[in-house]
Amino acid sequence: MTGTPEPPRRRGRPPRDQARQTQARDKLLRAGVAMLTERSFGAVGLDEVLSAVGVPKGSFYHYFGSKADFGLALIEAYAAYFARKLDRWFLDESLTPLARLRAFVEDARAGMERHHWRRGCLVGNLGQEIGTLPESFRDALRAVLADWEARTARLLEAARAAGEIAPSADPARLALHFWIGWEGAVLRAKLEQGPDPLDRFAEGFLEMIERPGA
Amino acid sequence: MTGTPEPPRRRGRPPRDQARQTQARDKLLRAGVAMLTERSFGAVGLDEVLSAVGVPKGSFYHYFGSKADFGLALIEAYAAYFARKLDRWFLDESLTPLARLRAFVEDARAGMERHHWRRGCLVGNLGQEIGTLPESFRDALRAVLADWEARTARLLEAARAAGEIAPSADPARLALHFWIGWEGAVLRAKLEQGPDPLDRFAEGFLEMIERPGA
Repeated sequence: MTGTPEPPRRRGRPPRDQARQTQARDKLLRAGVAMLTERSFGAVGLDEVLSAVGVPKGSFYHYFGSKADFGLALIEAYAAYFARKLDRWFLDESLTPLARLRAFVEDARAGMERHHWRRGCLVGNLGQEIGTLPESFRDALRAVLADWEARTARLLEAARAAGEIAPSADPARLALHFWIGWEGAVLRAKLEQGPDPLDRFAEGFLEMIERPGA
Repeated sequence: MTGTPEPPRRRGRPPRDQARQTQARDKLLRAGVAMLTERSFGAVGLDEVLSAVGVPKGSFYHYFGSKADFGLALIEAYAAYFARKLDRWFLDESLTPLARLRAFVEDARAGMERHHWRRGCLVGNLGQEIGTLPESFRDALRAVLADWEARTARLLEAARAAGEIAPSADPARLALHFWIGWEGAVLRAKLEQGPDPLDRFAEGFLEMIERPGA
């Protein structure tokens, strides 16, 4: 949900020119993602991204056909970064499934605090302004949310198998509920400049699903 | 959450000039609110608002000191419109308290559908872009959400008194949970261009609080 992504990893050692190019592309993606977690796509100017990373406009168009293409690449970079983050918590078998969800919430909270409650979720930000974005963004954002929900549903299936939630619980439905509300919680935490909305929403959600004494 | 507000009502009949002025101000507010439920504050230009309602720039500055002042007036107009909407549903004594909440959800759903899932919540939209807005907007938006939560808490108190939710339920806490998640649901409904996120979130919330057989 928050934080600064690492550049995508590539196998093997590229030739020097290619390495420099990859570096410039990664720098653009990192700067763009950081800006879009804080501000809207409409508010972020291309010149600002370029001057933040010292990449000339000509090079930009070498990597991306347009600002819209860049936007789609930013969604992809954020999705990859965030999938790694979810895996780190959701696949941690040293914790029970619901404790892993709590650990994710705690990590998101720490990430927002580290950025002084200014950075939220790139997907939520772009989703909010979807009416003024290229139509291609809609499918990209929906696919990212569907991926997060699928990962969360698998975690909740594990919670059900472990007896932490009721046998009658529907993991896919609960995962959807979580992500619908969680985007609201991140938005609200930015507005309140504090952790309460994240904590309140997560606690309410966990109380709703957790079996007493589990 | 959605829909087009009516102009604020005033008592008595104002003199003709004053009437014309009031009309121009109301037209600006109506157009501004409609635009801000759909797009971000940054994306809406003043010239666009003025030309949409045929009011010259000079008149605009007669009513509002700046675009920021106009923004605060839009929050106020939306809050007044939305408080009337909540009252209409939440104070309808022909329904049980939880049926009133369901009626509100149904109305919000119909409102978003009427505007082809393009219009969301002005407060959620501005909240999402709060990092780039004048700091005075933050308190204004927080106050509006606190008002909605207080109205919802009173409704849930009535639900508790009627035995629809558990005697141990905390209406204020549940109301906060509802509004945190509901803003996420409205955001997501715009993204999905359909009612599912609203329905899923509201159903999940109601299942969480409703006593079986109530």
